[in-house]
Amino acid sequence: MTLRLPALDPATLAPRTDSGYPEPYRSRVLPREKRQLGKALGLQQFGVNLTTLPPGKESSMRHWHTHEEEFVYVLEGEVVLRTDTGEQVLAAGACAGFPAGSGDGHQLINRSDQPAVYLEVGSRHAADVVFYPDADVDMHVDPAVHQGRFTRRDGTPY
Amino acid sequence: MTLRLPALDPATLAPRTDSGYPEPYRSRVLPREKRQLGKALGLQQFGVNLTTLPPGKESSMRHWHTHEEEFVYVLEGEVVLRTDTGEQVLAAGACAGFPAGSGDGHQLINRSDQPAVYLEVGSRHAADVVFYPDADVDMHVDPAVHQGRFTRRDGTPY
Repeated sequence: MTLRLPALDPATLAPRTDSGYPEPYRSRVLPREKRQLGKALGLQQFGVNLTTLPPGKESSMRHWHTHEEEFVYVLEGEVVLRTDTGEQVLAAGACAGFPAGSGDGHQLINRSDQPAVYLEVGSRHAADVVFYPDADVDMHVDPAVHQGRFTRRDGTPY
Repeated sequence: MTLRLPALDPATLAPRTDSGYPEPYRSRVLPREKRQLGKALGLQQFGVNLTTLPPGKESSMRHWHTHEEEFVYVLEGEVVLRTDTGEQVLAAGACAGFPAGSGDGHQLINRSDQPAVYLEVGSRHAADVVFYPDADVDMHVDPAVHQGRFTRRDGTPY
């Protein structure tokens, strides 16, 4: 497809392949490809990524947001959704949504042997704080601490 | 798939099949099915619909928003996107985004002989005004006029 704005063929975008996470969490999500559709389309109120998650990788560490909402829709393959209510397999055509301030952390894990592809949508809020409830994940994000970059739970920088 | 919140199988949702449009515009979009995924998932900051558009039907009249942003991602079939720059065919896997205040109206038309299925995401803003630039569409939405319901361009109600 040859498309021009305001339309876009996602295949024409170079994927973002980095992560702001410190180790050992970075290696749990990478390699992971995020094509930033919303940014390429000039959207400012919410982000939209087309994400490819290889077998064995995690979308993020399990987390919840105080102010930002998130939505995912699985396009290819399958992922396991982990929340307080346990694990569920989301195949192509399934979706999930994460209201702000729920206190229920979520993450996707690709436990299959094929890449999983999903759309992720997230709103943006300058005051957003991110909590990581898993005992083995010592991370925190607060715009009032360390310029909003990833810190340990006690606020000390990596 | 049997899923529980915060996950959802869209096939379990009854579609919304009505439209707030007055005639003759209502008949140009209906029958059209919108499964309100964001609402079912408890999201409040943006809406997400899984929409099925039958052959010959239009997603909406061509319009643009002063404050709200929109995004569409085609899942099945194909639609024609109409904007000021002309027409483009969006097949499955294509997307488009409509920043607020662009002044460039957009609509999707299904000119194929198969249903088209797409995801649509839209932010929400209480001050949003909607303009319909096509000469054959006498509609307008302004929260300060007629309780924000559809009016003619001159503000008179239908």
